[in-house]
Parts: sequence; C-alpha cells; structure tokens
Amino acid sequence: MGDISQEMARVKSKVDKLILDELLPRSSPLAEVDLLYKMMRDYAERPAKGLRPFICVTACQAMGGKEADALLTAACLELFQHWILIHDDIEDASELRRGQPTLHRKYGESLALNAGDALHARMWGILATNQARLGPERTLKVLSEFSRMVNETTEGQHMELVWVHDRKWDLDESDYYRMCVKKTSWYTVASPCRLGAIIAGAGTSDLDKLLQFGLKLGVGFQIQDDALNLVGDQSKYGKAQSDDILEGKRTVMLLRMLKVAKPEERARVVALMNRPRGEKTAADVEYIVSLMKSYDTIGYAQAKARELLREALGILNTVGWKGDRSSVSLLESVARFAVERQW
Amino acid sequence: MGDISQEMARVKSKVDKLILDELLPRSSPLAEVDLLYKMMRDYAERPAKGLRPFICVTACQAMGGKEADALLTAACLELFQHWILIHDDIEDASELRRGQPTLHRKYGESLALNAGDALHARMWGILATNQARLGPERTLKVLSEFSRMVNETTEGQHMELVWVHDRKWDLDESDYYRMCVKKTSWYTVASPCRLGAIIAGAGTSDLDKLLQFGLKLGVGFQIQDDALNLVGDQSKYGKAQSDDILEGKRTVMLLRMLKVAKPEERARVVALMNRPRGEKTAADVEYIVSLMKSYDTIGYAQAKARELLREALGILNTVGWKGDRSSVSLLESVARFAVERQW
Repeated sequence: MGDISQEMARVKSKVDKLILDELLPRSSPLAEVDLLYKMMRDYAERPAKGLRPFICVTACQAMGGKEADALLTAACLELFQHWILIHDDIEDASELRRGQPTLHRKYGESLALNAGDALHARMWGILATNQARLGPERTLKVLSEFSRMVNETTEGQHMELVWVHDRKWDLDESDYYRMCVKKTSWYTVASPCRLGAIIAGAGTSDLDKLLQFGLKLGVGFQIQDDALNLVGDQSKYGKAQSDDILEGKRTVMLLRMLKVAKPEERARVVALMNRPRGEKTAADVEYIVSLMKSYDTIGYAQAKARELLREALGILNTVGWKGDRSSVSLLESVARFAVERQW
Repeated sequence: MGDISQEMARVKSKVDKLILDELLPRSSPLAEVDLLYKMMRDYAERPAKGLRPFICVTACQAMGGKEADALLTAACLELFQHWILIHDDIEDASELRRGQPTLHRKYGESLALNAGDALHARMWGILATNQARLGPERTLKVLSEFSRMVNETTEGQHMELVWVHDRKWDLDESDYYRMCVKKTSWYTVASPCRLGAIIAGAGTSDLDKLLQFGLKLGVGFQIQDDALNLVGDQSKYGKAQSDDILEGKRTVMLLRMLKVAKPEERARVVALMNRPRGEKTAADVEYIVSLMKSYDTIGYAQAKARELLREALGILNTVGWKGDRSSVSLLESVARFAVERQW
C-alpha cells in the first residue's frame, strides 16, 4: 500500500493548502474573533489520512473529470469531517483527537460547540462558490448530495447516541449495519465517491452503483476502525485506546461477543458497558477486550469487513467509467486500504 | 400594534405549516430516527413571534416580489433560529425556551447538540430546493446571503461567550454594539430584509441600504430583548426572568451601570457576575437589577434603542422600493414593533 499512501498524501496536501491558505479566514482585527478563527483551523492543522477527499478526487478522474474541478468539494469534505468531529467529541466526551486534546478540552464545550457551527456554515458558503467553476446547476447538485450526506450522518449519530443514552442492548449485527451505513458509510465513501462522479457528469445509474459500493465499503471501513480502536497502535491511530468501550459504543465485535458469551459473562459486560465513562476502570476495559479475544470476535468482525470489501469491489467493476483505467485502479486500492489499513 | 401582530401571525402560520407539514420529516420506520425527527420539530411547535420570516416576506413584497416566492426562504430563517437556539441553550446552560424546558433539558446535551446539527443541515438542503421556483442563480444568491448571515452570527456568539469565559470586563458600549451587530442584527433584521429583496431582484445599492437599516434595527431589537429579560412579563416573554444575569451576559444596561456606579458597587457587581450560574443567588440578581433601576440604566438603554430605530427608519425612506406602499408601511410598523414590543 506504499503507492496509495503517497497518492493520498499528495491530494491531502493540496486540499490542506486550499483550506488553510484560501478557504478559512486566518486572522481578524477583533481579538475575540481571531480566537474563533484559530479554533476553526485547529483540526485542519492536525495530521489525518485524507481518505475522503482522495476518494472524491479519484472518483471524479475515474469518471472522466479533472482533479482541479473536484478540489473545492474535496476540501469541503474535510471541513465537514472537522466540524462533525468537534461536535462528536463533545457528544462522546472524548479526550484525544488525532493525537492531541479534543477542541472542547482545550477551549471548553461552549466555545467548541459554536466553533463547530461556524465551520459548518463556512462549508456551505464555500460549496456555493463552486459556481464559478462548475456552473450553477452542477453546484446545486453537489449541494444536494452534501445535504443528503449530512442528514444521513446525523441520523446515524443519533442512533448510536440513543443506544448508549437508553442503555439499549437488544441489538444484533443488522442493527449495527443499519446505524453504521448512516453514521459512517455516507460521508466516508458513498458521498465522496458520488460527489466526484457528479462533478464529472455521471448519470443516475452509475451514481446508484456508487451508492451501493460506498454503503458496503463504509461499513468495512468502520469495522476496521473499531478493530484499531481495540488493538491498533495508538501512536499511529491517534485516538485513545479502547475509547469505544469507555464511550459505551456498540460494535460488531462487542455484539458478537454478547451473542456467543456465557450468560454470566454477558450480564457482567452489559453492566460494565452501562457505567458512565468516568466509572469504567482499566480492569473493566481489559476484561471486555479479553473476552473479545478469547471468542475471537475481533477476527470475526474483520472477516465481515473483508467480505464487504469483496462485494464493494465487485460493484465497482460494473460502473461505466469514462476516465483513465489508472484512476479506477487507485479507487480499488483505496477501497482495500480502507479495510486493511493499520492506521 | 394590533395590525402588525395580526399580519405577523398570518405569515407565521403559513411558514409553520410549511415547516411542519412539508419541510421537516414527520416519522421514520426506525424508532431511534423517529425520536430525532420529533426533536427537530420541537422548537418549531412552540409559540414564537415569527419576526424574521415576516420581515423577509414583507421586504420581498415592498421590493415588488411575491410573498409565495419568499416563503421557503422565510421558513429557513425559522429553521435557522431553531437550530441556533438549541445550540445557544446548551452553550448558555439555559433552562427555559419559549416557556418550556430547553431541548437539552428534555433529552440530554449530546442528543440535543446532534439534533441541532441535523436541523442545520436540513436548512441548507431546503434552501437548495429554492431552485424550482427562483432558478439556480437566485437560489445561489440566497445561499450566499445565508452563509454570510450564519458566519456573522457565530462570530457574535463567540464574542459573547468568550467575554464570559475570560471574565472580560474592560468593555464599553461600543464593544457591545460590535458584538450585537454580529450576534443579533444580521440574522434578525439585515439578512431577512436582504433575502426578501434579493428574491424580488433588488440591486446592490438597495441591498447596501437594507444592510445599514438592519444592523441598526437589530441592535435596537436586542436592547429591548435585554430589557424584557430584566423587567418583562415572563408569561409573555417565554425565557426565565433575568437569565442574562445568571448567564453573565454583558448588556448595555449592565455596562452603563458599571460605568456610572460607585467603585465599590462596580467591584461587587463584577464579582457576582463572574460567579458560575449555579452560584448566583436570587439576592445577587436582585441587587444587580436594583442598581440598574436606581441608576436608570434600563431607561438609558431603551432610549438608545429608540434612537437606533429613528436612524433605521430614516434609512428605510431612502430605499428605491418597487412594490406597493402598504408593504413598506408594514416594514416600518414591524421596525417599531421590534424596539417597542413587550414580548
């Protein structure tokens, strides 16, 4: 995966430059507003993979469009990721993001919440400026796809939060997939891919196929993310180890373990998972992880992710690509990276 | 002001019907998502004045446009108000909104924060559908004005929050006006007015005048809001009495009082204002209000508001209206209402 990492880094650096040099304001004569601008740039200045902008730009080229036409939209995918992470970190009371304290840990919840809103609004304003390059009709198509994407993401986020809030455990894998498609797949793969294709002028039939591709691959991506949260190398991964357990997240590896574990194990895990973040000890987390390991439910989940990858790659083959073959190959490589990555 | 209340109620009921019957989803087969939709409709179902949609629709007609062309945009102004209030209530730890518990008091902060985001995203998606009636170019102009409006509002919100957060008191009235223009004027008067005019096809020169009108009147509106927060009839006003003092808000009446009070009074007020919400007693609030009354700084602030109203009405007279005179009269009436209202 050496090549794909380099290609991702190349697009990421273009998008970052666009965001930090042109799209986000740098300073204000009002000292207070200056701080807001600094907060809005904070997550953008932290290291990240840049998976979503890469998928957008590559799908555009695979469909016969130009990279330059997709860069602004790709940058907005990063801005989306930034504001939703700021809010997500507040909702989950997370402490680390991309290896540094979360924005609300640095500045307090109120200022961070508002900075997320400020970034959210900027994103739409920037999307509207696509007009100069893409014309008004295509710009509005891009806006509509973004709207659908954020609707789905907030619905998925709500589902996950409400499960924790309501201590809901009568859930199976299909519930997880339903939530995960909304929470992750739309904004991680489906819309980035479709946005690139929309910019290149793709038709409805191909956009439908890219939706199916994206929904499957997005779940594969999230399963691998959940696995890295449990057993990944924290120095590469950037989030706190086993944060998902502290936050009470329902994952495939957890739901599978609850299904196959002994009744007394299940009862103990559920009781531990229901405790608020601050009341979970390292030993609690260790117990839950050790059960996942002894029942090999992490391996089980990763096998599911590879199955989803295979299905997704199959769909990719049926799309009527109009661009160069090398871009389609890059899309295939990034699909594999999404599920097989170690960071 | 009997006529203007009736006219506002007429437009408000059209906009509410549009929001609740057509724009916001009503139910989902997924039980969790169904709750999200319920939360998104919550503030829309509470009583409110509907000042902003009324200004938008009336400015459109005064500029020679049709009410029907402005209704969708007017509805989006209400949606904006709803999501920003949900977030504002979290940021300020407010307990009451429109006479009922705030959304985060009903459902918890995480779910309420996410519901605000969901509503925010819906707002932009709905704005994009203006295309069918207004065409793509005018739709994008409306989107750009909305973007500017939300940028200004979040900057003003940040200024106010950071003053409380940093316990900043070396502020004078001009600081308040600078913050208030951003926090309130843009979204309460300037953009509603300009959006109506943009939909009717107004030119740059008139839009500039409407900006100046809106920035002045918006501050007048906020001063009266601050006054009602202190001395208004809570059954009509809907927010908790003296909430602004509990939240540490810098208002004209407070800053003026700090300027004219004796040094020992000033020191005591600042110390009380710096206390977190939960540590302020009813006696603390009573002491601060009694000082404002004895120095008549509420009267001082309201005189400023009336001055701003006079200046704003003067600007309104210089606009090249292309619509019927009765709509211009309604705009003048609603301007007076904004500053003279008791609710």
